[in-house]
Amino acid sequence: MLSLRLTSFTHLFSPPSSAAIARRSSSILRRRNHLRQRPLVVSFSAQSAAAETQDRLNNAKNRVSERVITPRSQDFNAWYLDVIANAELADYGPVRGTMVIRPYGYAIWEAIQEYLNVKFKETGHSNMYFPQFIPYSFIEKEASHVEGFSPELALVTIGGGKELEEKLVVRPTSETIVNHMFTQWIHSYRDLPLLINQWANVTRWEMRTKPFVRTLEFLWQEGHTAHATPEEAENEVIQMIDIYTRFAYEQAAIPVITGRKSKVETFAGACKTYTIEAMMGDKKALQAGTSHNLGQNFARAFGTQFTDENGIREHVWQTSWAISTRFVGGIIMTHGDDAGLMLPPKIAPIQVVIVPIWKKDDEKAAVLNAASTVKDVLEKSGIKVKLDDSDQRTPGWKFNFWEMKGVPLRIEIGPRDVASGSVVISRRDIPGKQGKVFGISMEPSNLEAYVKDKLDEIQSSLLERAIAFRDSNIVDVSTYDDLKAAISQGKWARGPWSASDEDELKVKEETGATIRCFPFEQPQGIKTCFMTGDPAEEVAIFAKSY
Amino acid sequence: MLSLRLTSFTHLFSPPSSAAIARRSSSILRRRNHLRQRPLVVSFSAQSAAAETQDRLNNAKNRVSERVITPRSQDFNAWYLDVIANAELADYGPVRGTMVIRPYGYAIWEAIQEYLNVKFKETGHSNMYFPQFIPYSFIEKEASHVEGFSPELALVTIGGGKELEEKLVVRPTSETIVNHMFTQWIHSYRDLPLLINQWANVTRWEMRTKPFVRTLEFLWQEGHTAHATPEEAENEVIQMIDIYTRFAYEQAAIPVITGRKSKVETFAGACKTYTIEAMMGDKKALQAGTSHNLGQNFARAFGTQFTDENGIREHVWQTSWAISTRFVGGIIMTHGDDAGLMLPPKIAPIQVVIVPIWKKDDEKAAVLNAASTVKDVLEKSGIKVKLDDSDQRTPGWKFNFWEMKGVPLRIEIGPRDVASGSVVISRRDIPGKQGKVFGISMEPSNLEAYVKDKLDEIQSSLLERAIAFRDSNIVDVSTYDDLKAAISQGKWARGPWSASDEDELKVKEETGATIRCFPFEQPQGIKTCFMTGDPAEEVAIFAKSY
Repeated sequence: MLSLRLTSFTHLFSPPSSAAIARRSSSILRRRNHLRQRPLVVSFSAQSAAAETQDRLNNAKNRVSERVITPRSQDFNAWYLDVIANAELADYGPVRGTMVIRPYGYAIWEAIQEYLNVKFKETGHSNMYFPQFIPYSFIEKEASHVEGFSPELALVTIGGGKELEEKLVVRPTSETIVNHMFTQWIHSYRDLPLLINQWANVTRWEMRTKPFVRTLEFLWQEGHTAHATPEEAENEVIQMIDIYTRFAYEQAAIPVITGRKSKVETFAGACKTYTIEAMMGDKKALQAGTSHNLGQNFARAFGTQFTDENGIREHVWQTSWAISTRFVGGIIMTHGDDAGLMLPPKIAPIQVVIVPIWKKDDEKAAVLNAASTVKDVLEKSGIKVKLDDSDQRTPGWKFNFWEMKGVPLRIEIGPRDVASGSVVISRRDIPGKQGKVFGISMEPSNLEAYVKDKLDEIQSSLLERAIAFRDSNIVDVSTYDDLKAAISQGKWARGPWSASDEDELKVKEETGATIRCFPFEQPQGIKTCFMTGDPAEEVAIFAKSY
Repeated sequence: MLSLRLTSFTHLFSPPSSAAIARRSSSILRRRNHLRQRPLVVSFSAQSAAAETQDRLNNAKNRVSERVITPRSQDFNAWYLDVIANAELADYGPVRGTMVIRPYGYAIWEAIQEYLNVKFKETGHSNMYFPQFIPYSFIEKEASHVEGFSPELALVTIGGGKELEEKLVVRPTSETIVNHMFTQWIHSYRDLPLLINQWANVTRWEMRTKPFVRTLEFLWQEGHTAHATPEEAENEVIQMIDIYTRFAYEQAAIPVITGRKSKVETFAGACKTYTIEAMMGDKKALQAGTSHNLGQNFARAFGTQFTDENGIREHVWQTSWAISTRFVGGIIMTHGDDAGLMLPPKIAPIQVVIVPIWKKDDEKAAVLNAASTVKDVLEKSGIKVKLDDSDQRTPGWKFNFWEMKGVPLRIEIGPRDVASGSVVISRRDIPGKQGKVFGISMEPSNLEAYVKDKLDEIQSSLLERAIAFRDSNIVDVSTYDDLKAAISQGKWARGPWSASDEDELKVKEETGATIRCFPFEQPQGIKTCFMTGDPAEEVAIFAKSY
C-alpha cells in the first residue's frame, strides 16, 4: 500500500457513523450525478472535446468524495438514485427512460432468476421463447387489453429499409402472441394443462420513468398457462402468487402483503389479479409481482379451444404471472439506509467481503496469506466471498465502499489478528461498534459456522425490521376521514370496503391513494364499509404507490 | 393400457428399422407441415370456422402418422424442417421469419447457456444488460459497421402514440451502445480490462430465413471487452474462440474447424474475426460462433479512452464474441438421421427415457413400480430421466417418439424384466438390435454405472462419427479446377491461398463457395496459392455455407 494513500486510514479507528456523517454533509458539493438528470438522445458530432474535459475532471477527482449519498430522510428519491449510481447497480441508457443494468445490479437479478426458475420447473413449467414482434392486429383482439396497452406501445414500422405493411408491436406483454400459438398446439384435453414461462425483455412507452421501478424496457419472466377448468386455472394463479410471496419473504426479506386487486386495478384483459404489495422505505407501495386469472377472455378473442373428454369443444381457461427487474428496486428501497444498499444475504452477489489491513510492508505477506486462507475456507463451504486485496485504496475507503454496496458481512484481518489467529467481523445491518465482534477464531470449522450463523441472523433481522416498519405504518380506518389522515401522514390505510368503482376513483383523486389489494389475511367479525356504511365482506388496503 | 390402442404393439417385436421404413414411405400422405410454408401475418377476422375444421381434422388423425420425417438423403431441408416440427423444437411466429422456440428446443439452448455462462464467469466476465433500443445516429458512427448492418435494421419510429424525433434501431448487435456506455465507465487503466457479457435477443431483418439458422429475431450471448493493450485484446479473442471450440467438441460433439476469417468475411467493424465452422449433414458449412478483435475502431468512433500509467490518454482495444440459437440448428444438422433428432448426452434435455411395457392389467402395477424405482436411482445420480408412463400410447409409439426426439438411451421394462430384475437398454445412435442390450441388472450401483458408461460412449461415438464425416469430405486442392470439382461434389476444399479479395469474390460467384476460414491447424511445408501460383503462407478452407 502506498503511503501517499494512507490519509484516510484513521477511518479505521473511528466509528463508521461519524465518518459517514462527514461524508454525507459534503453531498451538496457533488458535481454531477448520472441518474438525476434524464438524458436525451444526444448527437455525438460535437461531443468529443467537451466529454474529454469532463472525463479528465472526473478522473482527477478523489473517488472517495464521489461516493456520497444523500440522506434517505432528506430526499428519498435522491437517495435512491444515489445508491443506484454509487453502488453501480444501473445507469441510464442513451434513449430516454431506458436503463443499463450494470454487473452488480444484474447479479441481484440473477439471484432472483435462479430461485424462481427452480420453483417454476418444480411446479411443472417449461421455459420457452416467443418472438417479441407482435402484429398490431393481435393487440386489438382483446378489448380491454388494447385499451390498457395501446397508449404505451413502441411500434416498428420499417424493416430492412422498407415500410412494413402492418406495424409491429414490440411486446409489452405476450398474452396475444401466446394465445395465437396455443391455438395451434392445443387440440384436446390431453394437451392440457399447458404450463410455460419465458424470461424476456418487454417494452412499455412510459412517460415517467425511474431506474428499475419503471423503465421503457425491462426484464421479466412471464408465465402463461392454459387449463381445462376454471378451478385448475384459479389453483395455478394462487400457486404462483404463493411462490412470489415466499420468495419475497424468504429470499428478499420483503414482507409483502398478498391479496386480490380491485376491479379498477385488475390487469387489462384479466378476470382477477392477485398481487404482492411491498412497503418501501418512504412508505409508498410497490406492486412487486402479479398473477392473473385470465378466465376465457383471451381464449375467446383468439379461438383457443380444446376438445374435452366428451368430445365437446370448449375455450381454455388461462393464467399469466410475472415478476420483473422492478423487484431489484424494491430490494433497494426496502432495506437501504444512509450508508447505501443493504442486501439480504440470500440474494447478495457478495455475502462476505474480506478487507486485509497492514501498515508496513513486512506485515503485508502474512496478512494477505491469512486473508486468502479465510477466503478459501468460506468459498469451499458455498459462501460468496470477495477478497478486496487491492493496494490502491485504504481499508477505510474499502469499508465505506462495501457498506455502500450492501455486503452483509465484513471480515477484517490485520497483523494482530494474524498473530492471534482470529478475525474481526462486522455486520452491515448494525452500524458501528455494536455490529463488530473481535477475536473470532480463524479455525475453519469455527469460522464457517460463525459466518453462516451470522448470515442467517442478518437475513432474519432484515425481515423482522421490515415487518415492524410495515406494521407500524398501517392504520386501521373506519371512516373516510381516518383514511385521509392516514394517507396524508404517508401511511397505508386498511379498512372495510364495499363501495363502487367511482368511490374508489374519488379516493384516488382526493388522496392520491389507490386500493393496493384486498389482503388474503382478513380480520374476523362484522365489517362496515368506511365509505358507504354498507356491510362489507373484506378490508382493503389503500396507499400511495410507485 | 386400452386394448384398442394396442394395434401397433407388434412394433415392439420387429426391428425398429422396418417399422421406420413403413412410416417414412407414408410421408407423402402427410397433410401439412407448419414449417414448410412461411406464414404471413394473417387477419384473424375470418379465421375461426376454417381453423376449427382443421383442428378437428388434426385431432381426429392418428397422431403416429403425423410424425413422419422426410428421409435426410432425399431432401435435407425438408428433413430439417420435419425434425424441428415433429420433435417440437420450434414453430414459426406470426411475423415472417420469426420463430417460437418450444420447450424442448429451448431446453437445448439452456444446456448451451449453462455451460458457457460458467466458462464466461470463470474467465472473469460479468453478465449485465444493455437496452435494445439504439439511437440511429450510433449505428452511423463506425463506417464499416453501418455499411454491414444498415440493410438489416428494424426501426421503431412510433412510441407512446407519437412519431419519434430520432428513429430507434432494435439492436442487431450492441457494439455501438456498449461503447457509448464504456466511454462513461472507463477513465483510467485501473478500470481495464472491462469484461462483460449479455444474454439477449437481437433483430436482423433477414430476407431468407430458416428456423434456428437464420431468423429475424434470435437469442444469443454477446461478450464485449475493453483492454489497455492490443496484445491483451488479442489474447481475449483467442481465449473466447477456444472456449467455443471446446464447447463444440466436448459438449455438442461437433468437430468444428477453428480459424481466422478472410478480410472479406470479417465482421463489419472488426480488424480480425475468428470463427468456428461446422460441417452439417449436407456438407454445407455453418458459422457456429465468432470472436472479433475490434482493435480501436469503435473506440475511435465513440471516443472510448483511458489514461494510461504515464498519464497519457489512449483509445481502448476491444473485442466482442457471440454464440446464438443458431447453434441448436447446428446440433440438429450434425447428428440427426432419418429417425429424427440425435442429441449428444451432454446437452440432451432428457438423457434416458424409460418405457414401461405391459399387456395385462395385473402386470401394470409391478412394471410401473419397477420403472419408477429405476427412475429414482438414475435421477439421484444426476442423470436426466423421463419416465413415459402414459397409457394413451403404445410402447411402439413411444419408442418412435423418443427416438425422434433424439433421447440418447432408452430403458425398456416389461413383466419378464421385472421377474428377472433386469432391464433392456437401447442406444439411439445404433439402430435396431445392434444397439439393444438385454438383461442389464436393475441393481442400483450396476445400473447407474452402466448407464453413465453408455452415455459417455454415445457422446464419444457421436463426435468420432462427425469427425470421420468431416474428414472424408474435405478435399486438399492445389488448383482452382480441383476446388471447382470438390465444391461441385458438395465437399469442402482446402488449399493454399494468397490471392486478392477480388479473386475470393470470383470464387464465390463461380462456385458458390466462400472462404470459411484460414484454419489454426496448418500443414507444414512450402505452399503455393492454387489461384495465382504465388507463395502462400496459409491454406484456406472453402465451402458453401448457410
